[in-house]
Amino acid sequence: MKVDIVQKVLKANDEIAKLVKDKLKSYKMFCINMISAPGSGKTTLIERIFQEDAEDMRIGVIEGDPETTRDAERISKYNVPVVQINTAGGCHLEAHLVLQALDKLPLGEIDLLIIENVGNLVCPVGFDLGEDARVAVVSVSEGHDKPFKYPKLFTTANLVILNKIDLLPYVDFDVEEFRKGVLGINPNVNIIHTSCRTKEGIDKWVNWLREQVKNG
Amino acid sequence: MKVDIVQKVLKANDEIAKLVKDKLKSYKMFCINMISAPGSGKTTLIERIFQEDAEDMRIGVIEGDPETTRDAERISKYNVPVVQINTAGGCHLEAHLVLQALDKLPLGEIDLLIIENVGNLVCPVGFDLGEDARVAVVSVSEGHDKPFKYPKLFTTANLVILNKIDLLPYVDFDVEEFRKGVLGINPNVNIIHTSCRTKEGIDKWVNWLREQVKNG
Repeated sequence: MKVDIVQKVLKANDEIAKLVKDKLKSYKMFCINMISAPGSGKTTLIERIFQEDAEDMRIGVIEGDPETTRDAERISKYNVPVVQINTAGGCHLEAHLVLQALDKLPLGEIDLLIIENVGNLVCPVGFDLGEDARVAVVSVSEGHDKPFKYPKLFTTANLVILNKIDLLPYVDFDVEEFRKGVLGINPNVNIIHTSCRTKEGIDKWVNWLREQVKNG
Repeated sequence: MKVDIVQKVLKANDEIAKLVKDKLKSYKMFCINMISAPGSGKTTLIERIFQEDAEDMRIGVIEGDPETTRDAERISKYNVPVVQINTAGGCHLEAHLVLQALDKLPLGEIDLLIIENVGNLVCPVGFDLGEDARVAVVSVSEGHDKPFKYPKLFTTANLVILNKIDLLPYVDFDVEEFRKGVLGINPNVNIIHTSCRTKEGIDKWVNWLREQVKNG
């Protein structure tokens, strides 16, 4: 009974995700869905794009959080169109929320739409938002065991960002073990190492985005 | 419809949680439910108890993870009764899983049962596991905004642990802002600062547990 309902919810979501996808396509927007644990640095990774030489891409952002408009406020400082979705305690974004948010964005003036999902390694994975690519973010302070314990996210990721690498000297994180875990699940996925503090790897992150938008 | 089903699931869970509670009471076990984001250091906080002078408490552990028995293997090194629950991708523990796990533990030989929930700041909060107290863990690398963005966990917490404080010099974490966030939601909750690396605050954590077991 419970499983049946869950499947119905997912099916309904998939249908709306298709509407989102069609809308994005008609406006020639490339869309990424960023998924990670809370506090892995998704918002700062988005902020760093605007501090890099990325004016060639017109970017819009949708921020998902259970409560507050803190992340949207951070992004709006860069004069970028941004919409905050509050899930009122909900654990993931769904396609109908994204479809509503699109109405508040200047469609036709955006090449790259970045959706920052609710911080959660589990629930967002099952919900297609109509995105073209998924970005999984893990910070080194979370431990190298995450791909083993939470494999589903890594199965569906098009890019994996290992963030906060400036903290490597101060935490017990085995980079090789992490890579093994990720590549064991998704052998061809690109893994980028970044630090939003030192800006190491931010150019790779922005170049990956640029490449996606170009080949969209 | 969807909300209705969710309420039925929660109600069924509450009824089983009552059975768990009765069983714990009949065996005089005090039970805590540890909830946090993935990688905040719950397992290491449990390991540190066994390295502290805590032989006066007979402890049992239930480990929750979507996949793998890694955490149970870590705990079993301390010759402590431990049961791993794998949720097969599920985002939280439920009372019926705990009830089953109790059958695999030496009841009558445990004073303190520690349940480590799946790493998730949202979903575990709604599911009573029959515990006597809830412990919320946040690591400083996750950012001081977590109580504002994910308030529900902090509403129901009996203890808040701010972990990995050895990383404070290397991250942008405002301890005062975090405290304000937590106490704004739950004004009388105890907040303990810990580092599993330097062992700072581990004595406070163990003493808090000892106090709970004593006052049952």
